[in-house]
Formats: sequence, structure tokens, C-alpha cells
Amino acid sequence: MILSIPKSELHQRQKRFIEKIKSQNVEGAVLFSNVNIFYLTGFHFWTSERPIALIVNEDARFTLLVPRLELEHAEAFALVDHVKSYPEYPGLKHPMLYLKELFLEQNKGIKTFGFDSNGYGSPSGYHGPSLTDLLADYSWQSVSRVLEEMRYVKSDNEIALIKESIKWTTLTHELLQKYSKDGANEIEITNRASIEATEAMLQALGPEFLPHGPTAYIVFRGQIGPMSAFPHAVTSNLTLRNGDTLVTGADAAIWGYHSELERTMFVNEYTKEQQQYFQIMYEAQEIAFKAIKPGVTCSSVEEQVQAYFREQNVTHLTRHHTGHSLGLLNHEGPFLDLGDHTIIEENMIFSIEPGIYVEGLGGFRHSETLVVTENGSEVLTTYPREIDELIC
Amino acid sequence: MILSIPKSELHQRQKRFIEKIKSQNVEGAVLFSNVNIFYLTGFHFWTSERPIALIVNEDARFTLLVPRLELEHAEAFALVDHVKSYPEYPGLKHPMLYLKELFLEQNKGIKTFGFDSNGYGSPSGYHGPSLTDLLADYSWQSVSRVLEEMRYVKSDNEIALIKESIKWTTLTHELLQKYSKDGANEIEITNRASIEATEAMLQALGPEFLPHGPTAYIVFRGQIGPMSAFPHAVTSNLTLRNGDTLVTGADAAIWGYHSELERTMFVNEYTKEQQQYFQIMYEAQEIAFKAIKPGVTCSSVEEQVQAYFREQNVTHLTRHHTGHSLGLLNHEGPFLDLGDHTIIEENMIFSIEPGIYVEGLGGFRHSETLVVTENGSEVLTTYPREIDELIC
Repeated sequence: MILSIPKSELHQRQKRFIEKIKSQNVEGAVLFSNVNIFYLTGFHFWTSERPIALIVNEDARFTLLVPRLELEHAEAFALVDHVKSYPEYPGLKHPMLYLKELFLEQNKGIKTFGFDSNGYGSPSGYHGPSLTDLLADYSWQSVSRVLEEMRYVKSDNEIALIKESIKWTTLTHELLQKYSKDGANEIEITNRASIEATEAMLQALGPEFLPHGPTAYIVFRGQIGPMSAFPHAVTSNLTLRNGDTLVTGADAAIWGYHSELERTMFVNEYTKEQQQYFQIMYEAQEIAFKAIKPGVTCSSVEEQVQAYFREQNVTHLTRHHTGHSLGLLNHEGPFLDLGDHTIIEENMIFSIEPGIYVEGLGGFRHSETLVVTENGSEVLTTYPREIDELIC
Repeated sequence: MILSIPKSELHQRQKRFIEKIKSQNVEGAVLFSNVNIFYLTGFHFWTSERPIALIVNEDARFTLLVPRLELEHAEAFALVDHVKSYPEYPGLKHPMLYLKELFLEQNKGIKTFGFDSNGYGSPSGYHGPSLTDLLADYSWQSVSRVLEEMRYVKSDNEIALIKESIKWTTLTHELLQKYSKDGANEIEITNRASIEATEAMLQALGPEFLPHGPTAYIVFRGQIGPMSAFPHAVTSNLTLRNGDTLVTGADAAIWGYHSELERTMFVNEYTKEQQQYFQIMYEAQEIAFKAIKPGVTCSSVEEQVQAYFREQNVTHLTRHHTGHSLGLLNHEGPFLDLGDHTIIEENMIFSIEPGIYVEGLGGFRHSETLVVTENGSEVLTTYPREIDELIC
């Protein structure tokens, strides 16, 4: 059982990242995003007002700059050549001045460097200069897409972690379906299902397991009854009632890797109208499954789903595209969207979740996690999809 | 019982925001941060690759631009004059082009506008232009500090929500202490305490309660035994053992408002060495409580705590400043830090959490939530602080 990405694969990522930026005549980089830093170094940390920066120097050495409170933690877990620290933020001297010194010590040639964002950002009271102001003698360009695109096609280990995640979303969803009933509170149901699935997960995976994200959990996020017609409602402390349309969402992080499982369900009974919308959503998913294969564009999948919705006269009830990639984040590019012409490749992962939303009645959306195979695709989520299996 | 900020107070915030930016000769603003948008409009939403922007026009009208999937949700919950939507991201036309059209329709004078960030940002595959490129004929400046500083001094309603949050962190911590014992798993303990406290909270607060954030929860985030010496460790699926030093952290969101309660505890027994470090940390907190009052600077509080640590010869064991403000985020400015010379005012809220970290032994940190009063301060967290009350 694979429960983490091995160090050898992290080293390969670092090497590929350097090759890719050098091929764009970029000599090194300064990265601030926790996702990018975790992807390249395996160091999982809380983000806060205190900047953390990964400096990839012109000689391909990796230096991590952290606040003093993360020094020993980073030394223990980050796969880098050096860890350096600054005392504190705000502190008597701004963290970016430490970054500047460290950068100038190690990068002698005035060349082009890359960043994932032009300076650190945090809503928690951080303020500081951009890199282009801080190190104005250097030329800077974004390498954010390089890192994003490195994550498009998953390795075998990444797919194994996502499959492990799916096992636990299945159990979580089974428990949720068991506890969902007329009169029950959304938060109580989802908490109970989440905690019991997590306990089973911890027992099965043992002490080597590091979630690096939330353990098995499921939410309605307020998508209950008429509120389920808001595709991105938020948890609203609602009570389930007979006949309600429900939309669920389950996930479990395995060493930072996510999956997605969502189901449309009904409390005790459904009407003919609910059944009709459910069936259209179900067929739209089937169309997407068949449309996805290596060599076609993401937009072509969305076009086929939208053509089906037009045929069924429900275009006015649609609110979003068919799906997105995922992995270290719940949402990642590329997107199954009219405007995304990325060519689909083997071992990409997508959510497949075309939806229909009917005011006053509810939302109709399943979401599957799917992997692109050599000749087509394989749906990895195995939870029942048929309407009569989704009554609670 | 107050469970949300009334609309009248949201209107006051909008009015004050406009007054403050106009006094800086800024005619309007474009805001992207979900915290800023929630603070001004009461609309709580998921952030994703799809930008959401609040446009404050030169005539003081508030327009919210959302992706199509958030239209009805925003219309139902956002306190604004208009909600407009764009189809999708990436989509056939970039969301920022819709923003540009909307902005140009409503702002005729080529003047100075404010932003909280120069363009939208999201790690989930979003790419787009900065505002300064998109609307280059206008002059732009950051008004991010204006919004942060508006949140420094809390209203009576905000303090009431924070006090309500503290009630539930107390219960959560009581349950955690009850379930913590030699041989227990960190995630199982914290899940069980969190879910039971949440159930009690839901029953007590009733259906009007909207968390707009996590309901009552507590974590060790890996701060167990030697790992507790990492101030910002992450949940690591550890097992508690006799004699372990533990550091906890509890919170509960009440309509988006947070509090902070952290305790150093010991499994069954503690050594003389653990007791000594505990006592120094305890005294450091007392010094901070006494140092805080209206009219003094944040940095002066930190100076007094650091002077005490020097006296005790433990400066080399400290890793971070004494505390931070909080409210809609768990960490907000101002900071009780040598570099923050903000003058403390009545009704500011701070965490008080000076810490000591000893490699191999553990971390020693309590965190209290405190409100600044007319003449001093009041510690709002009431959970026991004495060592013999913190054995589990």
C-alpha cells in the first residue's frame, strides 16, 4: 500500500522543474505557494502571515526560507539542500529583506528568474514588497503554469494515493446515506459519517499514514431541499425533510492527495419531476465518460455535454462546466470547459459532474473521479449511481 | 443571543469604508478577497478558480460579480445593490473582461480606484490580468490596509459572537481532556471531542445558527510528545504516551467569527523539567495580560514578555511573538510583535500565547483570547490554566 510519494519521486520533480524553467531561459525561481513547495519538497505546513519561500538557485540548489518557528519542522521534513530562517513577522526586519540577502548571496548572475507569485500574499495581515521591486536588477517571469502543468499528468504513485482516497470516500458516503433521514440535522449527519469513516481509516492505514489534509469527510454544504439548487451553497445547519433533493460531497486526503465523490439523493421518496432531472444529469455524465480519451481537447468534452443539455431543453438550468482536474487541490486545471483547449492525456484525473439546478426543487449533480487510460477512461469512484440506490 | 451581524451594521461598514477611501481621494474599489467581501456584504462563499469581485462604484453603489453558479446564491445572501454574473471560468470570454465592462459602464470619471489585490488570485488553476493592466486608464492603489484596520477594533456584536465561540471551545476542550489518554490516537480524540461539542452546540443554538466556518473543533495538529516542540506541526496520526507534553488548539466559528483556546497538557504525569518550562510560559502570559491596555503599543507588550524570557534564560527556546488579533480569520493584524507599533485600543481582540519549545521534550504554550477594556484587558477564555488541572 502506498501512503506517500517517495523521496526519489520528489527529486525527479525538482529535476524536471529545473529542466523546464531552463528550457525557457529562466535560471532559478522563488516560490511562495504552499502547494508548490509541498509538491517539490514534501514539506506540509500551515500558511499564515509569516512568509515561507522556496528559493531555487541558479546552481540548482534548493533553499527554504522559513520563520523561526518552522525551522526545526522544516529541517525534519523538507527535501531541500538548506533551510534558513528569519526571526518573525512583522519583526524588526522584514522577512523579504532576509530573502533578498539569501538570494543575492547565492545568485551572482543578473539573469531571469521565475516566481509563482510576484511576492508573498496572505489575508492574515501580511504586507510586503513584490519580487520585482525587491530584486529589481533581475528580470522576472511567472513560472506558475510550469508547476501547474507538471501536475496535469499523474504518476503511478499519485494515482495510487487518489485510489486510496476513493476507498474512504465510499465508506464515508455509505455511512452518510445510513444516517440521512427525515428530521436529521445536516451537520450531525455529516460529522457522524466523517468521524466513523476516519476511525476505520486510521485503523486500516496504521501509524505510517499522514493525511496532510482532512481525513475522510463528507458534507452537504447546505445543498438540502430547495437550497440544493445553489451549486456552491455553504453549510447552513438545515434539517432534512421527506422528499428533499440532497447533494453530497465526500473527500479524504492521503498524503495531500484528494478525490471527489458527489451524489444526488432523495429523502424517502422522489417525484416524477425529480426523477426526470436526475435522469438527464445521469445521461450527461455518461456522455462525458465516453467523450474523454487521450488526444481530444477538454473543450470537446464540454461541447458534447452541452449539446445533450440543449437537446433536452435544460440549458437554462445549467450553471457550470462538466469538471476539473484535481490532486493536491480539490480543484485544479485543466477544466472540462468550452474555453480550455488542453489536449487530454493518459493519466490525467478529472471530476465528471455536469449539473442541473431547478429553483425551488433542487440540484442534480453526481461527481465521479475518473482517470484517463490509454484508449479511453476509467471511472474510479464506485459508489452506486442509480436513483433507486440513492434513497435515504 | 446574537448569532449574526445585523444588516444595519453591514450598511454602516459599507458607509465607513466609502468614507475612509474617499478621505484618501480614492473614488471606489474592486475587492476580490472573500474575507473583505463577507465583511462588507455578509455573503459567505467558497473560493475557487472562479473569481468573485465586489465593485464599489464612484457613486457608492455596490455590485457583486459572480460566476453563473453563484448568481441565485449571491442574490439571496449578499447585501449589495446589484449582482451580475459571467458564464464560467475559463469560459469563452475571460471573467475579467466582464468585470471591465461592468466597471466602465458605471465609472465614468478617470480617477483613482482602490483594490485589495491587483487582480484575482487562486492556486486552483486561475490565470488572469492585473487590474492595472485591465483598466490601465485608471489610477490604482491598495486599500487593503483600510479594510484590515476597520476590523482592528471590534463592535459589540462582533465581541458577542467571539464570546459565543469561546463557550463552545471550552466544552470542546473539556471533552478532549476527557478522551486524551495513554495509547489513544490524536485524530480519534480530537474528532470525538469536536463532534460531541458540535452536537451540543447545534442543539443549543438552534436552526438560526450559521457557522460560516468550522463548527466547534479541536486539534493537536501533531503537537504530541517531542513533536509538540514544533510550534506549527501538522496533524500526524500520533499516539499519546505517558508523560507526553501536549499542545491543543480549539476554535468554533459563529457566523464567521473565531476565538482561540490552546492548552499545554501532560499525559498522566509530568517531570520537574516539564513543570519548570510550564511555569515560565504561565508567567509570561501573566505579564502580557498586565501589559495590555489602551494607549500602549503592541511592541511594548512583546518587549515586556521578551525581557522576562531573557531574565529566565530561555530566549533561545522561544520561536514566535506573543500574539495576534483575530476575528473573521484565525490570525489577523495587529500583532504583539517587536515590529508592530500599533497603539492598542479598547475592544481590540488578541490571542495571548507566548511559547517555549524544547527539542526532544515538547512545546509549552497556552493561548487565551483577550479583549482590551477601557482601562486594561479581560481574558475571555475561562478554561483552567494551572498545571494540575491539565493532566489527562
